[in-house]
Amino acid sequence: MASNVNPDLLAERKKATFDRETLTDFIFGGAKKKQRRRELKNAIFSDPEYKTLKPWAFCTREELNSTHLQKFSIIQRIEKTLNITGRDEAFTVRQAVCPNEYYGLGVHSHMFIPTIEKLGTEEQKRKWLPLAKNFSIIGTYAQTELGHGTFLRGLETTATFDPKTQEFVINSPTITSMKYWPANLGKSVNFCVVMAVLKTQGQSHGIHSFLLPLRDLKTHKPLPGVEVGDIGPKFGFNENDNGFLRLHNIRIPRDYMLMRYAQVSEDGTFTSSTSSGRLTYGTMLYVRAMIVNSTSSTLGMACTIATRYAAVRRQTEVSPGGPEAQIMDYQTQQYKLFPQIAASYAIRFVGQRIYGLYVTTNSSIERGNFEDLPELHALASGLKAFCTGEAADGVEICRLACGGHGYSHASGLPKIYTSATVECTYEGENTVMFLQMARFLVKCYQQMKSKKRLPKTFSYITDKPSLVSDLDSSLQFDSIIEAYEHRAASEVKAAAQSITFWLKAGKNPWHSNNKSSIRLVWAAKACCHLFVVKTFIGHVTSANLDPKVKDALITLCRLYAVSGMVQNMGQFSQDGYFSEAQINMLTLKLSDLLEEVRPNAVTLVDAFEFDDNELQSCIGRYDGQVYDALYQYAKSSPLNDTDVLSSFHKYLAPLRQQASKL
Amino acid sequence: MASNVNPDLLAERKKATFDRETLTDFIFGGAKKKQRRRELKNAIFSDPEYKTLKPWAFCTREELNSTHLQKFSIIQRIEKTLNITGRDEAFTVRQAVCPNEYYGLGVHSHMFIPTIEKLGTEEQKRKWLPLAKNFSIIGTYAQTELGHGTFLRGLETTATFDPKTQEFVINSPTITSMKYWPANLGKSVNFCVVMAVLKTQGQSHGIHSFLLPLRDLKTHKPLPGVEVGDIGPKFGFNENDNGFLRLHNIRIPRDYMLMRYAQVSEDGTFTSSTSSGRLTYGTMLYVRAMIVNSTSSTLGMACTIATRYAAVRRQTEVSPGGPEAQIMDYQTQQYKLFPQIAASYAIRFVGQRIYGLYVTTNSSIERGNFEDLPELHALASGLKAFCTGEAADGVEICRLACGGHGYSHASGLPKIYTSATVECTYEGENTVMFLQMARFLVKCYQQMKSKKRLPKTFSYITDKPSLVSDLDSSLQFDSIIEAYEHRAASEVKAAAQSITFWLKAGKNPWHSNNKSSIRLVWAAKACCHLFVVKTFIGHVTSANLDPKVKDALITLCRLYAVSGMVQNMGQFSQDGYFSEAQINMLTLKLSDLLEEVRPNAVTLVDAFEFDDNELQSCIGRYDGQVYDALYQYAKSSPLNDTDVLSSFHKYLAPLRQQASKL
Repeated sequence: MASNVNPDLLAERKKATFDRETLTDFIFGGAKKKQRRRELKNAIFSDPEYKTLKPWAFCTREELNSTHLQKFSIIQRIEKTLNITGRDEAFTVRQAVCPNEYYGLGVHSHMFIPTIEKLGTEEQKRKWLPLAKNFSIIGTYAQTELGHGTFLRGLETTATFDPKTQEFVINSPTITSMKYWPANLGKSVNFCVVMAVLKTQGQSHGIHSFLLPLRDLKTHKPLPGVEVGDIGPKFGFNENDNGFLRLHNIRIPRDYMLMRYAQVSEDGTFTSSTSSGRLTYGTMLYVRAMIVNSTSSTLGMACTIATRYAAVRRQTEVSPGGPEAQIMDYQTQQYKLFPQIAASYAIRFVGQRIYGLYVTTNSSIERGNFEDLPELHALASGLKAFCTGEAADGVEICRLACGGHGYSHASGLPKIYTSATVECTYEGENTVMFLQMARFLVKCYQQMKSKKRLPKTFSYITDKPSLVSDLDSSLQFDSIIEAYEHRAASEVKAAAQSITFWLKAGKNPWHSNNKSSIRLVWAAKACCHLFVVKTFIGHVTSANLDPKVKDALITLCRLYAVSGMVQNMGQFSQDGYFSEAQINMLTLKLSDLLEEVRPNAVTLVDAFEFDDNELQSCIGRYDGQVYDALYQYAKSSPLNDTDVLSSFHKYLAPLRQQASKL
Repeated sequence: MASNVNPDLLAERKKATFDRETLTDFIFGGAKKKQRRRELKNAIFSDPEYKTLKPWAFCTREELNSTHLQKFSIIQRIEKTLNITGRDEAFTVRQAVCPNEYYGLGVHSHMFIPTIEKLGTEEQKRKWLPLAKNFSIIGTYAQTELGHGTFLRGLETTATFDPKTQEFVINSPTITSMKYWPANLGKSVNFCVVMAVLKTQGQSHGIHSFLLPLRDLKTHKPLPGVEVGDIGPKFGFNENDNGFLRLHNIRIPRDYMLMRYAQVSEDGTFTSSTSSGRLTYGTMLYVRAMIVNSTSSTLGMACTIATRYAAVRRQTEVSPGGPEAQIMDYQTQQYKLFPQIAASYAIRFVGQRIYGLYVTTNSSIERGNFEDLPELHALASGLKAFCTGEAADGVEICRLACGGHGYSHASGLPKIYTSATVECTYEGENTVMFLQMARFLVKCYQQMKSKKRLPKTFSYITDKPSLVSDLDSSLQFDSIIEAYEHRAASEVKAAAQSITFWLKAGKNPWHSNNKSSIRLVWAAKACCHLFVVKTFIGHVTSANLDPKVKDALITLCRLYAVSGMVQNMGQFSQDGYFSEAQINMLTLKLSDLLEEVRPNAVTLVDAFEFDDNELQSCIGRYDGQVYDALYQYAKSSPLNDTDVLSSFHKYLAPLRQQASKL
């Protein structure tokens, strides 16, 4: 990849105990897929238009917004040229062109069109899908409102049917009802699907979806009654013109309501079929699998940057007058980075597993089998929250582990953090997600109490008195899993018992639940943590893999599991499950495992094959020439376009004059 | 303050169990000081020039940089007009004008001038101080290099004495030796104090300080041989032109070396007095006290915003069809916010205490008494790390607790986070700081083993076998402190024993220390946590205070201590110090304490008296009119200056044409 590699990185790469290519094959599902990824990326990074793009950090907000549309058109072109098929290839292309960025017009492709496909009648699909697919209409999905997020029933936008004109009248009756946050709503789209409370014949019929034109298709000017704009700068994703939308008596024809599952007839009669709810499960699972996948990449990028930098950066001599040590040789640095490398592998395999569950579920739904849905919904909710939370925290740990340079956009890390942390909030705020899972866990606990069979994934839930762990320094996986099961079961039991306690004390169900909700979140987290540990161990131990690669991954599994126990020791040991000797043993093993990972650290992150163009990081470059890169970055800072800024004449020179007058 | 206050906030303010003004008096040291703060802030916020400043979030980088110089000139003017005296008043003014921002030219006032005062001879001071004070020269402090941060001995910049011309020749011999990061270095200053390795008569004499002209005093153009510029955009503090500096054979006269404690004579002979090292302790303590103070304000601001928003924001009905609940009524929300409110009080009182220690120490030093210095240095190092770490984490918890709107710069929270997190890195990276403290703790442990007297603050260090806690649901402060002492002593013991273990196993001292360094950090954190808990309890219980205010603060103390125990239960209970029943009791008490804080939450943050102009937050406004404010913010986003952006014609319209051609 690079000709002039920093000798410290060269040495690290030689040190690895396994063959890097073999691991990369395993990560991406075989040598053929790996090769195809490389071809796609090469095509992108050698594309002449791609090469003209201005570095992200030096763009103004308007440039960022414009560039993201340009990137979309590049992607459209490349997808056609390279004959992209399937979600993996599409994801590779998007990530390569828009790393840690909003994928331009993503909401049009991933929400607007699918909503028409899902909720439109055949006639509506015939009419609208061709227009959407040839970009005659470009749409967004307008659900959240200024005053309303996760709680759908709180939405205030109204769609009132007027039988006289055969139209719906759409309104934002209050300030809080204006649509707020939808992607690309501000400046880019000319259409949307709007979620509104349907009113007809004097009655409300809950939330339904309507197609709504927003801007003139030719001039792109907002239509009369449509007040629309960008919501202003944010922590990250500033390329996205997330928008606000106030609607003042906008009239749309009756057949702009998406009528596959709910209809309003000419006289205003409302009818609906009831099966629509469960159909959204598939989409929901899909979206969460995608989030878990992308959050693993985000964390993987941060690990790549911080680990390479830790190999190149030197600080403080080991013995007086001797050379300064690579910071990766400090145990505290290893303890920051290596558990994050382990987590980025763990979350990657969890994403693959959820995607598998989605595929199975979708075919079950098509066969009319909804049996496993509540279990999968609980899992997907919890894992979305757990994985995005772990990843965001991990990215920030990596960023802080790079010292001062981690604070500069030159490191690429602040951008990665702002794109990681938003995943904790969107598509279901994480605390709400944990509580959704916890509700299911408490149901399982009650089923267990009444001797009913538990869903397979949660069969460990029990109220039996605690055992004592047999975990010893050989760190057998069975004992590790038993420890995680024990902790998860204890937390579920404590949460369920807390609810019962408050109910018996005379609190109503809402209060009893609310007064137990810290425990409910702990229970959900513990169950997710177990699921991730089990998935990681299962995926690695069952794989048909070169033994050396397998050994390296097994060490990562152990590190992930042990550091998780050490960090949550209160929950693992509160009932004496671990002895004091076992707790000390685990802390010692943590130290051993860090040393075992040490020679492989750089190669473990290299195996993810993030290109320098994706990392956008001076300090995480493949060639390790971090200081030259930082210097070049600094020199090209726009503030250096002129030697003397006008502010010198305006504010600095006068200071002196004023002072000398006194 | 505001006429049209949101009824939810009005109700919260009526609910408080104590008088808000009385608490504010306590926070700021009396009614008189509070009144003066208000006067100063009123003067600033009604200043005509101040009022013309463009909102931070809508500025380009160059505007931010220019505005920070304008703000500096406003501060200069206001300080003179209002006759500012003392550090508290100056801090109030700076925070009001530059909330969560770099204080324009702060490095000139706080580092450049003090360094000349400290290290210059009388003659040098007579020559340079007047020039610096009337801004004829504006300077920065150039220490860190591209490849060298905390480890001073690693610096590479050289100052070689040439007796023929009686000059020093200053050079950046390598890329890694270029100065990198110094504040205002990029575009603003024309001078610096540069730290360089002194070479004379063929020998190196370590790092010394030199005055170095960088730009022409009239034209502000860089002088020949000086390569200087801005280092580019960062996570935050983009108003600051942190700079890089490469020096190519710059010659300065011999008397530009600051010669109070070290001298080079005309023939190149080097002499030095040895007392200079300890003199920097005072400054170091002062800087760390300032950081702890400012980090408490930063966290306080985030708490103010998130708590007010939690009172106003409503989500999910409590009973079907009923009103949506204030999100502050959710236990999970309380558990996010209230421990942060408690921490912002705790850290505030710790800052006051460290400042007190600094004052005492400074006068001790002047009397030639250095006895307490190692203890104070250990404490200040650890507390800098502990408090900034807690504050940064707390700010991010507050931001995430505001859901989607917390991600927008409209909330003010992302800016607060970027200013909080940098404090974990600068003025001593936090892990390095903890390890510095830990080194002292291990020394104490060894002293204890050899029956020597321990410094008062660390007298709890022991190797006695563990007791069993007598903590019960009355949460006596003595028992709480004993628990924290027990945990701190256990962690120190474990760290010290780990070092001994590795030494006995044949590792050299560096490796033994390194292989124990995770434990060393845990030990330092546990000792700092204890110090903060003790300081908080001591400050509140000993205060002569209105009983109702005292009760509210005592509840906060308990919440801070109990949530700290619950979060670190593994360390508190690993040796059976707490029984299972005590652990369950603590979780229940946590829930009770959150409910006790609930009615006072808004008033507790109101008492900090952050002005809306300081919070710069649509969702944290005093009047709680968050949705109107968000709407106004959105409308004024610069992207909305035109209805149709040029990117529509450039990228969106062509998409349609291309598609229709296919």
